[in-house]
Order: sequence, then C-alpha cells, then structure tokens
Amino acid sequence: MKGRIHNFNAGPAAHPLPVLEKIQAEFLNFKGSGMSVIEVSHRSKRFDEVIQDATARVRRLLKLDENFHVLFLQGGASLQFSMIPMNLLPAGQSADYVNTGTWATKAIKECMIQRKPVKVVASSEDKGFSYIPKEISFSPDAAYAHITSNNTIKGTQWASFPDTGGIPLVCDMSSDIMSRPFDVAPFGLIYAGAQKNLGPAGATLVVIRDDMLERVPQNLPTMLKYPTYVEYNSMFNTPPCFAVYAIQLVLRWLEETVGGLDRMEQINREKANLLYRTIDRSEFYRGTAEKESRSMMNVTFRLPTDELERQFVQEAFEHSLSGLKGHRSVGGCRASIYNATSLEAVQALTDFMKEFAGKNG
Amino acid sequence: MKGRIHNFNAGPAAHPLPVLEKIQAEFLNFKGSGMSVIEVSHRSKRFDEVIQDATARVRRLLKLDENFHVLFLQGGASLQFSMIPMNLLPAGQSADYVNTGTWATKAIKECMIQRKPVKVVASSEDKGFSYIPKEISFSPDAAYAHITSNNTIKGTQWASFPDTGGIPLVCDMSSDIMSRPFDVAPFGLIYAGAQKNLGPAGATLVVIRDDMLERVPQNLPTMLKYPTYVEYNSMFNTPPCFAVYAIQLVLRWLEETVGGLDRMEQINREKANLLYRTIDRSEFYRGTAEKESRSMMNVTFRLPTDELERQFVQEAFEHSLSGLKGHRSVGGCRASIYNATSLEAVQALTDFMKEFAGKNG
Repeated sequence: MKGRIHNFNAGPAAHPLPVLEKIQAEFLNFKGSGMSVIEVSHRSKRFDEVIQDATARVRRLLKLDENFHVLFLQGGASLQFSMIPMNLLPAGQSADYVNTGTWATKAIKECMIQRKPVKVVASSEDKGFSYIPKEISFSPDAAYAHITSNNTIKGTQWASFPDTGGIPLVCDMSSDIMSRPFDVAPFGLIYAGAQKNLGPAGATLVVIRDDMLERVPQNLPTMLKYPTYVEYNSMFNTPPCFAVYAIQLVLRWLEETVGGLDRMEQINREKANLLYRTIDRSEFYRGTAEKESRSMMNVTFRLPTDELERQFVQEAFEHSLSGLKGHRSVGGCRASIYNATSLEAVQALTDFMKEFAGKNG
Repeated sequence: MKGRIHNFNAGPAAHPLPVLEKIQAEFLNFKGSGMSVIEVSHRSKRFDEVIQDATARVRRLLKLDENFHVLFLQGGASLQFSMIPMNLLPAGQSADYVNTGTWATKAIKECMIQRKPVKVVASSEDKGFSYIPKEISFSPDAAYAHITSNNTIKGTQWASFPDTGGIPLVCDMSSDIMSRPFDVAPFGLIYAGAQKNLGPAGATLVVIRDDMLERVPQNLPTMLKYPTYVEYNSMFNTPPCFAVYAIQLVLRWLEETVGGLDRMEQINREKANLLYRTIDRSEFYRGTAEKESRSMMNVTFRLPTDELERQFVQEAFEHSLSGLKGHRSVGGCRASIYNATSLEAVQALTDFMKEFAGKNG
C-alpha cells in the first residue's frame, strides 16, 4: 500500500493491514453508534460484543476448555512479573524459574523484590543466553515453573515446552502467542503483552487455569488479583477498550483470513526459514542464537563489523525496510517477523540482504 | 457531522471531533513513518515527541513548576487507589480520606485491604452523597489527605479545594481534570483515568510532587512504584502508546483550539448553567445534588417516575442524544458534559428536555 513500509519492529509491531483499514474506516462511527470506538461506553452492548468475541476467539484459537479463563489486563508483562508471585506463590513455597534472557531475569527479580523464594533451575547466561536449556530438573514441590517461550532480545525460542512432572507451567508468551498451536494442558497461567502478536500496546492477555485461583491470597489489592478479572469478566473497572477492540480484529484476521494457528505456524516457519537460510548460506551474516534454539519470531544476526551493521540498518531503511536494529542492550541486527509481517516483507528483506552482502562482503 | 450523535456518556466519553479526524487521517501512516501510530516503536523519535509533547502540555495547562513530575501509567484510577497507600503511606502513619461517593469509598477500601490506617475525616453518606462536606478537621499528622474532586455517579464536585493545614492533598481528578484552572501547590499527588476529559481508556495521568517520592518504600514491585515512572519517563516498559498519543492531541486541542483552562472553564460553566437552569425552572425535572455541590461535569437528575425516566432516555436516544441513563448503581438520569461535549450538544439536550417535559409533565 502506498506510503507504507515493511515493519520489522520488535514491539509495538506490524499489524495486519486489513485490521488497520477497518479501524480507520469505522473510527468516527463504530458499528453505526454515531460515536468512535474510543467514545462508546465499556458497559454498552457494542463493546460487550467486542470483548466477548475477543475472548471466544482466544478460546477457539488456543483450544481452551472450560477450565481456563481468558482475561484482559493492563500493565504489560512487566506487571505480570509481580502479579504472578503475588497471586500464585503462597507463603512457605518456592517457584522454579528458567532464565533465558532479559525478560526472564526481570521476572525473577520481581519475585525476589517481594522476598519470595525463587529457584533458578536452569539458565543460559553462561553463553550469553544464546540457547534454550535442556534436561532441566524441576523441583517436585515448586508452586509453579516459569519460562519465557520466546526471547525477543536474544532471538531464542522454546521449540517444545519442558516436562515439569506436573508442576504448573507459567509462561510469558508476549512475543510468540498465537504464532503456533500448542497444548495448553500443562499451563497454569499464560500471559502476553499485546504489542507483538495481538495488537497495540496497552493490554495484556492472561489465560489462567481454574485451579490456580484457589491459591490466591484474599487480601491482595483488587486490581492486582486475578480473581477480580475472572469475577468481573475483565471489567471491574474500565478496560483498555481500544486495545481490546484492535485485538479482537487481529484475532478475527487470524481465524478468518489466515485460517488458524496451524496455518499461521506454516507461514511463520516459511518466513523464518527464508531468513535463516539467507544468513546460513552467507559468510557475511552470522546468526547469534544456537540453531536448535532459534526463534521463529525474532531473527538476530551480526555483520562483520559494527560499522557495517549501522550501514545495513540505514540502507535497509532507505529500501523501506524498518526496525532492523538490534535491542539497545545487545546491538547487532534483528528482524522481528511476527504474525502480521508478510512473507513478501521477508522476501524483500532477504533480497536486500543478498544485495548488501554482495556489495560489502 | 453526518452520522455522529451527541454523546453524554460518563466515560469512555466524547472526544473533540478534530482529534478523532486527525487520528483517522494519519492512522495508516503516522507522521510519514509508513506505519500506523500503533506500529511505531515506543523508543522511536516519533513516539518520544508524542509523550514529550503530552507532558509539556500537561505542565503548561496545570502551570506545574519543576517540583512536579508528569507520569503516564496504566490500570486507571482503580489501580491508583492501591498504589497511593502503597507508596505514600509509611508504616506508623495514617491517612485522611473524605468520602464523597462510590469512588472515594473504593479508594478507602483499597487502603484498608493493605491494612493501612485510614481515618475518614468527613463523609456525605448520610444524605446519599448528595453534597460535598464543609469545615473538615484534617489530622495534623496525616501522611496525606485524599479527596475525589468530582463525583461522576452522584453529580457533585468540590467548588474549591479544602485547606488541609499543610497536609499534602491527594486527589482523584479522573472526571474533572483540565476542566478548570486550579492552584496545584497544595497537592502531593493528582491522578486521573484518561477516559473522561483526557482521551481514551487505557492511560492514567499522575502528577506527583517531588517530595512525595522520598517516602516511597524501596522494596515495592517495580511497576507499582512511582519513582520507576519518574526515573524512566513513564517508559520502564512499553507505555499505552495509542492512548498517550490521543491524549496529546486532546491536550493540543485544549491549548490551541479552546485556548486553555480559563476559557475551558467558562465554556463548561455555560454548559452546566444551561442544563441546571432547565432543571430548576421546571417542576418536571429534579436535580439530585445539593445546589452548591453541583458538578459542572455530570448533571444528575430525576423525572417524576422510573417509567418516565426510561421513556426519556429512550426518546432522547431517538433524537441522537446518547448516554443519558444514570449509573446502574443509582438509577435516574445523568448528562455527562465533559470538555469535549459542545455547547451545541447541551442546547440540543435542553431543547429536548423542554419538549419532553411539555408532553409528559
């Protein structure tokens, strides 16, 4: 579309164009209400349909049975780092955490700030978080086992989820939720900031298993207690209506245009393979994650020198390929290729990469 | 504008039409970025300009000196109810609260959930919260004195703020922030959910005085600690970008189109006077708040019978006057006339009210 560029931002990130066009088209008059979607009451039938539909789509896409609750919160994954131990780690118990990078480290830190016992049962810090640990011994009495399914900064991803021997998995899926199908049964809680695969920043999806609610202490602040969101269908107070509305449209696109998570995974795999092949077949680019831990969402790579990396990001931008700079904490290059980034965009990127390597290699 | 109606919703509420049109016009391509505003990185120069400009406008509009910090959070006023005692009420101290209705009651409750000592120094519960208490004795050793400047549900508002004898005022201004000028000097903290006078739901404005930060305990969860937002300019994690962007545009409208808070107050007073005159000059309508405590933002009134109220709301809706039903907890009728509700809309409403009273009175 005229004036639009290929967006490889790590989050906030690309949205499906038809979703953006729909938001734009009805922005002054939402469903014939005579109001913008940001002006309708969250207690109105029109908004209730939005949040109900978003919830139903999450349930279908993740194949959730009645044991799971779908909640919309605010505060991003960062607030979940605190809410999880607050709600799910009762006094006298400890939680297992696997440290696979920046975000997992922050999750562990928030647990420690509350002076809750944390056991880091595995870590890939020894090799700069470039891999996902294998053969982890989880504690048989842990309250839960926390993992980060995809690591945006280091470009690693769990290819399959670990067997915890029945300990409920708690998982930060901010950057790969809805990118592939998976079995939800072992998960006690899944959380995801919206701004990568779900929609705009400002909403957090939480999927919580019913039995997790039983352990939540009674005296938590109302807004920091999962049961509040269960009891009030995420509307104890005014939810982030616009973000929930955009999420609903993204989920509709995922179900009705893409065709669900099996198909989404195929497309994501095709996109990632194309990029990794381009990296692996060149002497010029070097992937930073170990091959079997590579992320399908965030492809991290280096060029021969920092100077060439700067030049690469700049020239790519001039070719309408945006957001390729690595996270400020690690440098290098990163292409985030979430659900909404098209195969066409990845092809444009790999074409450019070959051209750039040819000229500068 | 064609298809648009007059919106008297209590929140989420009416936005200035030029703001909505601007959002719509640039929704697919924000400032020539080739991306939607919901797709740009919160670390980009383009978004940084948005949040810096929003902050600068808050500072100018409220005449804040360098002792005050302007923060954007998530979770609405409801999360502030918890964060305030968590941050500002040190062990061994007590806080004064004035109870003027539903929201103040909730603020008090969240303080009690944390087992923090609260003293309710005044309440208007004896008369159904239909007035603002006068001549309040604040505790000389209170950590802060909490008030709710405008009560959306009961339709009352502090005409001027109480003298606390130097105790820092903490104020929920969710429903009247930016509706009139006031002296910020006595305030330690001001907070406001965006969805009435500032923009869409999903962002909370907090203005905090520098000396308040000194009393914040070290070991609070990072996302629940005001100093985090001060230190990281509200970007410790991804902020609710779209809501902040819309707020920036609303504040620009307020400064550049309306002409600032003095002018805004004149307009708001004119709107409220028109409505209250219509109520007072009729035998048919009855205002529910005591006259000197009446809100300029939420005009609450009753009709002779519940049946007539239902009919009024329904017929008003058929005349493109929407959102006139009272809060579900109190019934009756309510016209919310925030900054973005035009005098023209209020005139259309009072015309309809006279017509309806004539037919049914």
